[in-house]
Amino acid sequence: MKITIMSEVFHQALGDVVRAVSTRTPMPVLTGVHLVAKEEGLTLVGSDSDLIITRELPAEAGKLDVEQPGAIVLPARYLAEIVKKLSGPIHLQLIDDTTADIRCGEIKTKLKGFPSDDYPKLPVMEESETLQLEASRWMEMLKQTVFAVSKSEAKPVLTGVHISMGEGRLISVATDSHRLAYRETKIDQHIDRACIVPYQAIGELIKLWDGKTEVVEVAMNEHHIHCRLGETSLYSRLIDGKYPNVSGLIPEGSETLVKMETKQLLKGVDRACLFAGEWKNHNVYITIHDGRMKLSSAATQLGNIEESQRIMEIEGTEEMKMTLDGKYLMEALRSVKEETVTLQFGGIMKPVVIRPEGNATHLQLISPVRAY
Amino acid sequence: MKITIMSEVFHQALGDVVRAVSTRTPMPVLTGVHLVAKEEGLTLVGSDSDLIITRELPAEAGKLDVEQPGAIVLPARYLAEIVKKLSGPIHLQLIDDTTADIRCGEIKTKLKGFPSDDYPKLPVMEESETLQLEASRWMEMLKQTVFAVSKSEAKPVLTGVHISMGEGRLISVATDSHRLAYRETKIDQHIDRACIVPYQAIGELIKLWDGKTEVVEVAMNEHHIHCRLGETSLYSRLIDGKYPNVSGLIPEGSETLVKMETKQLLKGVDRACLFAGEWKNHNVYITIHDGRMKLSSAATQLGNIEESQRIMEIEGTEEMKMTLDGKYLMEALRSVKEETVTLQFGGIMKPVVIRPEGNATHLQLISPVRAY
Repeated sequence: MKITIMSEVFHQALGDVVRAVSTRTPMPVLTGVHLVAKEEGLTLVGSDSDLIITRELPAEAGKLDVEQPGAIVLPARYLAEIVKKLSGPIHLQLIDDTTADIRCGEIKTKLKGFPSDDYPKLPVMEESETLQLEASRWMEMLKQTVFAVSKSEAKPVLTGVHISMGEGRLISVATDSHRLAYRETKIDQHIDRACIVPYQAIGELIKLWDGKTEVVEVAMNEHHIHCRLGETSLYSRLIDGKYPNVSGLIPEGSETLVKMETKQLLKGVDRACLFAGEWKNHNVYITIHDGRMKLSSAATQLGNIEESQRIMEIEGTEEMKMTLDGKYLMEALRSVKEETVTLQFGGIMKPVVIRPEGNATHLQLISPVRAY
Repeated sequence: MKITIMSEVFHQALGDVVRAVSTRTPMPVLTGVHLVAKEEGLTLVGSDSDLIITRELPAEAGKLDVEQPGAIVLPARYLAEIVKKLSGPIHLQLIDDTTADIRCGEIKTKLKGFPSDDYPKLPVMEESETLQLEASRWMEMLKQTVFAVSKSEAKPVLTGVHISMGEGRLISVATDSHRLAYRETKIDQHIDRACIVPYQAIGELIKLWDGKTEVVEVAMNEHHIHCRLGETSLYSRLIDGKYPNVSGLIPEGSETLVKMETKQLLKGVDRACLFAGEWKNHNVYITIHDGRMKLSSAATQLGNIEESQRIMEIEGTEEMKMTLDGKYLMEALRSVKEETVTLQFGGIMKPVVIRPEGNATHLQLISPVRAY
């Protein structure tokens, strides 16, 4: 292996793949980045065995020149640090199958790693069932649901986002059993699959997207999901188990339905959360009365805060009292990009449904706090 | 107490004083901000008893209006958080001597605190001996020395910066006994005083300076230093004890004296530190040979890095080998703002003296690591 690569190109690509590298791993080879140079380009792989990120760099005059193909695994932390501190063309050449010589002008580094053969292989995906989707839509779906996963390991299936395809729809759902986030979108392809993707993998995928790549390709097999964003790929091990059927949880009718300005409501809830942190559930009190919504919180020893906001439209019972987890409510409202939302109250102990106005593909559901 | 204050003005002033407030204090009243409203304006005070930051806000039409003087201590964290979330004029009024009513448009907060009388008084300074100095020069002196204080509590006097005035000079010194940072400047006033200021206070003072205030006023008494930057003041308790006499530590002659480009050398040392972290002392090897300086580090299991840089000028013995703590060397070089530095080597086990070229008021001294 003998390559010449511009420091910025190498640095940027390493930045992506090292996200998947953990320093705490029982397999020392996984502390490294797998570099595979072929005539057509260089592939970089980083992995903690559950999550794998790969980046392909095509050979391009002046940016990457592969003089001699080959492969090696080099310590991720050191490789990334040295490349960050270099500028201009970097010459990387193997001395033997575990040692690389890295030169850049007057600067010479020797780095010891692992033989390429010791590195685990990538999962094999059935590429015939690959979904193609606008990357921006895919990312939006994930962002609108991922925050609602359970942070407790008590029910492992709830720590992931449930992704399902079928009947011309792609659905993303997350729930921690106190709240639920649901987003769907239409797809043209006839694929019928479902899986549970770990929270961390979704987080990394969102960070990996550069905002420019237009199409994402999503493939699944029994144990892995593979998302391809141009030259960058993420593979994640799936969470085993049966995801609960959530469709029955979403209430149909409502006692009271109010329409509010999303941003103004979000700011109000944020302020009302001031004293809510004193409670386990971030208790925020909501009172509907006289065409206005009062938001408040109180902590006996410290004080209280309250404000009232105009309700744009109201249907059903015009008086209502409820205690919600203010943090859940903020996260739900933050995931809404539309200017107005409807809040559908079913009664004091029934979950509240939050929907962007005029958009049936996205909803957030929050169970009330038993505060009375 | 009854005032109206614009949220931005209040928020900014609170931001300064809460820096001194600690949530962990045996005196509950110190978790609060002391607000004192007089006809001429509002004073805010935050303190953890060792460090006190005050901010004066003069009454100004449209920004601060004092309708009724008075004083209270309000919980710092909650007050800062609520003010951050409000915008426009804030009406603050006392309900009783421990409770404030805060209103902003439709938003009403009640905050419980402590009576003003419970708050400790400010230290009394002898203002006759106040030094006046350009704030930029004062900050530069502190930045060029503070990093060299000892991080260990074994010798408490070394955890502070020694500030001394006398014979028309102001001197700032810090040392952890392995390295020393020294900076002096001329002053017009005839003040003869010295004190040891805790590391944390110096750090806060540097952060407090907005870069605009032109003059700093420095006063000391037996137990406190007071630095006034326009409307903001910092008081710090001093470290008790006798600071070592450091003037004898600075070697006069040298075996080898080299002149280098500061930034290039700093970047080289930074790179050479790559494998230095494997050692307790961040061992970086320096070799002078053939008109060049070689910088290197090595970690047996991982690899090594080396580079060589051109020496601009050399005096004395032209061959030299030495091991230095790379982190110390970087911090010393970073404190130099001049384009070129001289490094004065006295021999393999003698300290290295780093001086900005053509500037006798600033020096950095680093003892070598016993690596052979």
